[in-house]
Amino acid sequence: MTKKTFPLSDVYRLLEPGPVVMVTTSHKDKPNIMTMSWQTMMEFVPPLVGCVISGRNFSFEALTKTKECVLNIPSAELAKQMVGVGNCSGSKVDKFKKFKLTALPASLVAAPLIAECFANLECKVVDTRMVNKYNFFVLEVIKAWIDPAQKNPRTLHSQGKGQFMVAGETIKLPSKMA
Amino acid sequence: MTKKTFPLSDVYRLLEPGPVVMVTTSHKDKPNIMTMSWQTMMEFVPPLVGCVISGRNFSFEALTKTKECVLNIPSAELAKQMVGVGNCSGSKVDKFKKFKLTALPASLVAAPLIAECFANLECKVVDTRMVNKYNFFVLEVIKAWIDPAQKNPRTLHSQGKGQFMVAGETIKLPSKMA
Repeated sequence: MTKKTFPLSDVYRLLEPGPVVMVTTSHKDKPNIMTMSWQTMMEFVPPLVGCVISGRNFSFEALTKTKECVLNIPSAELAKQMVGVGNCSGSKVDKFKKFKLTALPASLVAAPLIAECFANLECKVVDTRMVNKYNFFVLEVIKAWIDPAQKNPRTLHSQGKGQFMVAGETIKLPSKMA
Repeated sequence: MTKKTFPLSDVYRLLEPGPVVMVTTSHKDKPNIMTMSWQTMMEFVPPLVGCVISGRNFSFEALTKTKECVLNIPSAELAKQMVGVGNCSGSKVDKFKKFKLTALPASLVAAPLIAECFANLECKVVDTRMVNKYNFFVLEVIKAWIDPAQKNPRTLHSQGKGQFMVAGETIKLPSKMA
């Protein structure tokens, strides 16, 4: 599996449509994964991402302590693993093993890339002032990877209560919008 | 066009998949609309939404001064109007008139609902501490409406550079995820 570097200035194009992401962390040499849907772009360059990671998640402590994570974007083929990852806790399970996901070393952070995801964004926490009140972290994407073997990946979009929308057709409309 | 009230506790199901939204404001008796894609849920109940509205947008001042807006969610049938709204400024154009969109009075805020959108979320700004640095507003949804006549609306999802993904099929997978 060969990952290709992806321009930081185009990262917004991956996250703006609102895909479910799988967040990896590594704390005390223990890699973990959680599933997340509450994130938004906040700036183009450097790419900033705001996201809510609840204190009820095992990943919360890892993120707070290490200030690093990777946002991995799964395509529809990974739907079952994505949901499985969201339905158990890293405090009890090695999720890489349980869901047969491959951890690849990242280049700038200790948290691993999930090889099977079509995009991987290495991030550092850059602002924690809204963590106490909202569990809201501001991340800076410092390195981005894409899997060139996965053409036109169809992303997953959470609709709550176990329902997910799979990305449909793409349309082009002249737009100045971000 | 009869709107039906929608439970606040289910608002996350509308915004979590990452649809493009049309933000309406009303300032100095002038209603306006902008198109937005940088938003995330931050809390279930009361529903909190974080969003980035740049100071370059005419709506920024309206939102800052009135602390009120409506998030209107368009379906794919409104793609052209949605992009048109994003490509001009309310400082020069009456967008309701130009794009033949219908302003309906909201119940709790001065900003209007867009009748043609399938969902409308009346919001108050509740936290501005990240506005200076990131143009990031925290909104509370205080009233939500849905158009019962629009069955299974297909949302639009921005991918940058004039490209939009249209919501595809829906799958069900047992999930404890938000």
